Amino acid sequence: MKKIGIGIMGLGVVGGGTYEIIRANREAIIASDGIAIEVKKVLELKAERMDKLNVPAAARTANLDDLLNDGEISIVVETMGGIEPAKSFILRAFAAGKSVVTANKELLAKHWAELEKAAKKNGVGLYFEASCVGGVPIIRALDLSMQANVIQQITGIINGTTNYILTKMTEDGSDYAAALKEAQNLGYAEANPAADVDGWDAVYKLSILSSIAFNTCVPLDRIYREGITRISAEDIAYAKEMGYRIKLLAIGKLNGKKVEAHVHPCLVPEEHPLAGVRNSYNAVYLTGDHVDDLMFYGKGAGAHPTGSAIVSDIVYCAGQKKHRYAFFKNDGKLDKGIKFVDDFASKYYINVTVLDKAGCLAKVAGVLGRCGVSLEQVLQKDAKGKDKAVVVYMTHESGEKAIARAVGIIDKLDVVERINNIIRVI
Amino acid sequence: MKKIGIGIMGLGVVGGGTYEIIRANREAIIASDGIAIEVKKVLELKAERMDKLNVPAAARTANLDDLLNDGEISIVVETMGGIEPAKSFILRAFAAGKSVVTANKELLAKHWAELEKAAKKNGVGLYFEASCVGGVPIIRALDLSMQANVIQQITGIINGTTNYILTKMTEDGSDYAAALKEAQNLGYAEANPAADVDGWDAVYKLSILSSIAFNTCVPLDRIYREGITRISAEDIAYAKEMGYRIKLLAIGKLNGKKVEAHVHPCLVPEEHPLAGVRNSYNAVYLTGDHVDDLMFYGKGAGAHPTGSAIVSDIVYCAGQKKHRYAFFKNDGKLDKGIKFVDDFASKYYINVTVLDKAGCLAKVAGVLGRCGVSLEQVLQKDAKGKDKAVVVYMTHESGEKAIARAVGIIDKLDVVERINNIIRVI
Repeated sequence: MKKIGIGIMGLGVVGGGTYEIIRANREAIIASDGIAIEVKKVLELKAERMDKLNVPAAARTANLDDLLNDGEISIVVETMGGIEPAKSFILRAFAAGKSVVTANKELLAKHWAELEKAAKKNGVGLYFEASCVGGVPIIRALDLSMQANVIQQITGIINGTTNYILTKMTEDGSDYAAALKEAQNLGYAEANPAADVDGWDAVYKLSILSSIAFNTCVPLDRIYREGITRISAEDIAYAKEMGYRIKLLAIGKLNGKKVEAHVHPCLVPEEHPLAGVRNSYNAVYLTGDHVDDLMFYGKGAGAHPTGSAIVSDIVYCAGQKKHRYAFFKNDGKLDKGIKFVDDFASKYYINVTVLDKAGCLAKVAGVLGRCGVSLEQVLQKDAKGKDKAVVVYMTHESGEKAIARAVGIIDKLDVVERINNIIRVI
Repeated sequence: MKKIGIGIMGLGVVGGGTYEIIRANREAIIASDGIAIEVKKVLELKAERMDKLNVPAAARTANLDDLLNDGEISIVVETMGGIEPAKSFILRAFAAGKSVVTANKELLAKHWAELEKAAKKNGVGLYFEASCVGGVPIIRALDLSMQANVIQQITGIINGTTNYILTKMTEDGSDYAAALKEAQNLGYAEANPAADVDGWDAVYKLSILSSIAFNTCVPLDRIYREGITRISAEDIAYAKEMGYRIKLLAIGKLNGKKVEAHVHPCLVPEEHPLAGVRNSYNAVYLTGDHVDDLMFYGKGAGAHPTGSAIVSDIVYCAGQKKHRYAFFKNDGKLDKGIKFVDDFASKYYINVTVLDKAGCLAKVAGVLGRCGVSLEQVLQKDAKGKDKAVVVYMTHESGEKAIARAVGIIDKLDVVERINNIIRVI
């Protein structure tokens, strides 16, 4: 049995979950892995959080130095969130010779190379399974199970809040505002939901996951981003009628020396395994050149699922003789051999309100055709206004630029009242 | 870069896939993991298999000693299958100081403790990700990502042949014989399909997976087994009508100091993630006490998915300073603190042909009630014969023994012509 002293910085939801897991399963972890985890210090300014979890007085501190100067602490858990002071605290932990386990996706996505460099310099480890998709062990899988493969694509439902909202809209027919309200009441969405509904959270995770999967740096500013706020109850209903569910997808693709990375709503065929990922569940669908398709599914957030990933990292880190820093080649600089693609190809769902004149459906289709966009199916629905119709065009795979050109022309047609929405399709 | 010399014993489907992956992705593996895999020797009696893959003359051998005496070989891949000579060959590899990577589930399930003991004695490793669920990295996940959890349950669709047959029966309405025939024509099922359709293959894998998940030995003779040969097109149709799919499930449950393990067909609610696992895909659904529910989905067989797991094990094994032998405590003897349960609880689907007399539906229900089995739903269908009906009783959760007692009585009722099938429900 090996004793491992740890310090926890931040006893919020995830830090608290981590603390509870270590208390509950300390003996089970000794039995299965031979590691006895001792929480030596908890750094937290809010006394009520300490009280709630009955943290012993000797372990409580509001001073980082108490944690850094404790020679029995070899691993520090960072569950504070945000950029500062988390970043400075982690760098000081490295300097003090301590490995760090973190759940901080934003910090990692923005400053990974700097953090990894500092860890390496000090000969300590940086582990972050909890930063992406909560309890789903996708980072360890990419790192330790996919060695035989060149990963071709990762497609993830990696934000639980938006997946909950879209599931409610799909299953209860609610509109976006009502579903968001419900998600907020249940604590799935923040009072200010922008980080989730605008896709930022998914972009952070996609940057981390695709950098590991493609073994090259995929920085935030190379990732196209679009949130779910413009998805209407009608879009969901029409998609359903055509055999699709709407999901917020994070997609990374490698094609030889080209990488594309994008987060946006997407129509997913209902027989695709990702279509069945409901409520706040997350999943990462992965294609390797030999393993073929895999999917990893589970809780992407929450005190205990995320705490499970942190405790797994603690045990894993404790067992390493030599830490790995394989993720960011070139110190996080862009690999010059890799081209980032912005004209990526998708099928498209285009929802248009047209004036109900003979030939207007064909007029729109004609523009698409002239721009090189061919159609897979067309759905015509009665619109609420008189003499109008809603027409949904589902295209074959087309480039972003061809679609943008076609939509620009369609928008100006006299038979077109309004382009209601344009959503990609996988 | 670290050079790793390997020997491959058996160049069949999986051995061949392994060879092809190493050839195709050698440089990619060096780039991502710093390991250069060199296939030094291939042991195979069939020259045509060597020819097909253009194995260089210098690497070809029909003599195990050539492989064992090659000092540059540190890892041996066993892809021969079967018990002997695979077992003796593996033991000789251990004795020669070589680690072994194997895909051999039957050998492992039957002789794991002995193999592990020999590996340990020689200070070499035994790796077997490929033995369970092909390309799906479930063993590494149980080993290196679930440390925080006491696993409560694993529920798997872990045999691709039976899942293909049941999917065809569900989606095309074919009967068992026709679906089996189709699976045989496509190479998904063997000419003698017993190992798959009678559930043996799933039992081997469940023994391995549940032993790791529950950190105790779950031997083959403690696993209840029932195959899919009695599932009819009608059962599938009635299940569908009630909102279920029929799957062959492998279930392991831990409840304190009690373990239950069983392989049998099961009705799965259509909104359950396992219900969407179609064709020859596999999935393992896992519940931990903190991570909650996870599912790992992918190809459970095939040259390249299984080869992917083998190559992953080679790279992983090559990186280990010290091998782990944590799986079989007590040298594979039964843990006396653990009780194996044979009266496990399930819901049941009971399909009965009754004579269409007033009150006979209630008569059967009455027997169930007197045996302590309560009903969740009842479905009555016209039977082909005159004056007959087919009635499907769906029970609430009941013990095996209560159901057996009730069915014994029902079978003798004069209003009952035949009990057509009894299938468990999750």
